[in-house]
Amino acid sequence: MSRTENVLTKRVLTDVKGLLTKKTRDAERKFIVEGWKSVEEAVNSGVKCDTILYDPHNVEEYKLLSLLERSSRAIYQAKAKEIESISDMVTSQGIIAVLPQFNHIAAFSSVLRKSEALIIALDAINDPGNLGTIIRACDWFGVDAVLIGKHSVDMYNPKVVRSTMGSLFHLPVLTDVDLTESLAECRNAGCTMYSTELQKSEDVRTIAFSKRSVIVIGSESHGVSENISVLADKRIKIPQFGKAESLNAAMACSVILSYLKL
Amino acid sequence: MSRTENVLTKRVLTDVKGLLTKKTRDAERKFIVEGWKSVEEAVNSGVKCDTILYDPHNVEEYKLLSLLERSSRAIYQAKAKEIESISDMVTSQGIIAVLPQFNHIAAFSSVLRKSEALIIALDAINDPGNLGTIIRACDWFGVDAVLIGKHSVDMYNPKVVRSTMGSLFHLPVLTDVDLTESLAECRNAGCTMYSTELQKSEDVRTIAFSKRSVIVIGSESHGVSENISVLADKRIKIPQFGKAESLNAAMACSVILSYLKL
Repeated sequence: MSRTENVLTKRVLTDVKGLLTKKTRDAERKFIVEGWKSVEEAVNSGVKCDTILYDPHNVEEYKLLSLLERSSRAIYQAKAKEIESISDMVTSQGIIAVLPQFNHIAAFSSVLRKSEALIIALDAINDPGNLGTIIRACDWFGVDAVLIGKHSVDMYNPKVVRSTMGSLFHLPVLTDVDLTESLAECRNAGCTMYSTELQKSEDVRTIAFSKRSVIVIGSESHGVSENISVLADKRIKIPQFGKAESLNAAMACSVILSYLKL
Repeated sequence: MSRTENVLTKRVLTDVKGLLTKKTRDAERKFIVEGWKSVEEAVNSGVKCDTILYDPHNVEEYKLLSLLERSSRAIYQAKAKEIESISDMVTSQGIIAVLPQFNHIAAFSSVLRKSEALIIALDAINDPGNLGTIIRACDWFGVDAVLIGKHSVDMYNPKVVRSTMGSLFHLPVLTDVDLTESLAECRNAGCTMYSTELQKSEDVRTIAFSKRSVIVIGSESHGVSENISVLADKRIKIPQFGKAESLNAAMACSVILSYLKL
């Protein structure tokens, strides 16, 4: 019997659906990835899939499918409706993969040992699309690691996963981080810590950034928390040329990365 | 009788609701702005409001309210429910203003006469949040004018208006533009035209940008249209450092503006 002839029971479907809530994701240490492209990015990054549901009438990547058939723990054919009942997308893309959550602790430690390192730390980013966009920008500009603080939206939220467009699988992104602790670790390892702030801060253009930097981006509504801000070596800001009052967190992050890299 | 004692009839409510559709907005040449902050930005920019609906139990800005009472064509007290029935926001902010659409033709002509000018042209940006974010970034970096091509989402769409965070009122933004025509106008006026492209393009860092530039940003899925791309003096790209395949249009725009200005 080919492995794809596994019978999709209600129980399996209910288990996968459970992962739409953070509580179950945290308990099971798993999350959902949707769409052929994103699943391919996951597999290419070396992640081994746990469960796969796919619609045999909506297969975009036969090569990927046969790889998944060999390498996943369990693979099921599903009806379009069943996939849609889990999907977060307007038009579901015919495949849902359940993956184990990352463990990037070791990868992060090795980033801290590099002679040049750029780390982005996120304090209370609440919009899933913004968080996904930030991870994608960090990937584009070759950031070494991203730290997501405890008060941000869950990185394994399907909306975040989707809006990273696969970038989640390209660099170490640590979630649910105690920022006070991890930023102290960065500083002990010799990184200079910069906090982005609108007030009492210096124009980025006047700063000689260290080769080993960690830059904290705060929430759009509240900025960087006071208990994080006080740890910073420098408070930096993006100069404003027009009349807009602020940039959102994803734009601020793109602008700073652009400034540092270009 | 104080002007706020105007009676809010079903007819008025239906007329305002009509503006949620592009068809009615185009016919009436009006649009909706929500929230005290955004209405204030509109008024500060010199726009005269047509109709105002506000919830007397949810007034944030009494000074603004009394200004609106003097200056708007018609102002009505409304129930929270009535405002919610029009509102596009999760939590409505107690005020809806109907404004006349802009006429920025003259402002754009005067931009073309400046000795230094930076114009952003948008070809087929379909995501309302992205379009709003782009307008906000253009405002932040002091862009002189934004041209939105015909195949983009409507700038007067309430989601776009909201996501500009008031920036729509800070600079000339022209919508429903025939880009072929307007870009020819820019070039005739002496501007150099740059098209952002992933293929057959030069790294922005190798370009000596002209003091009078128009930069075209394409859609995330299809890039800049072929018929627009052929008009460009240069095709430019943002260099990639990591593994992300692309940046979304709003990020690409922020990154280029950051590169040019910082």
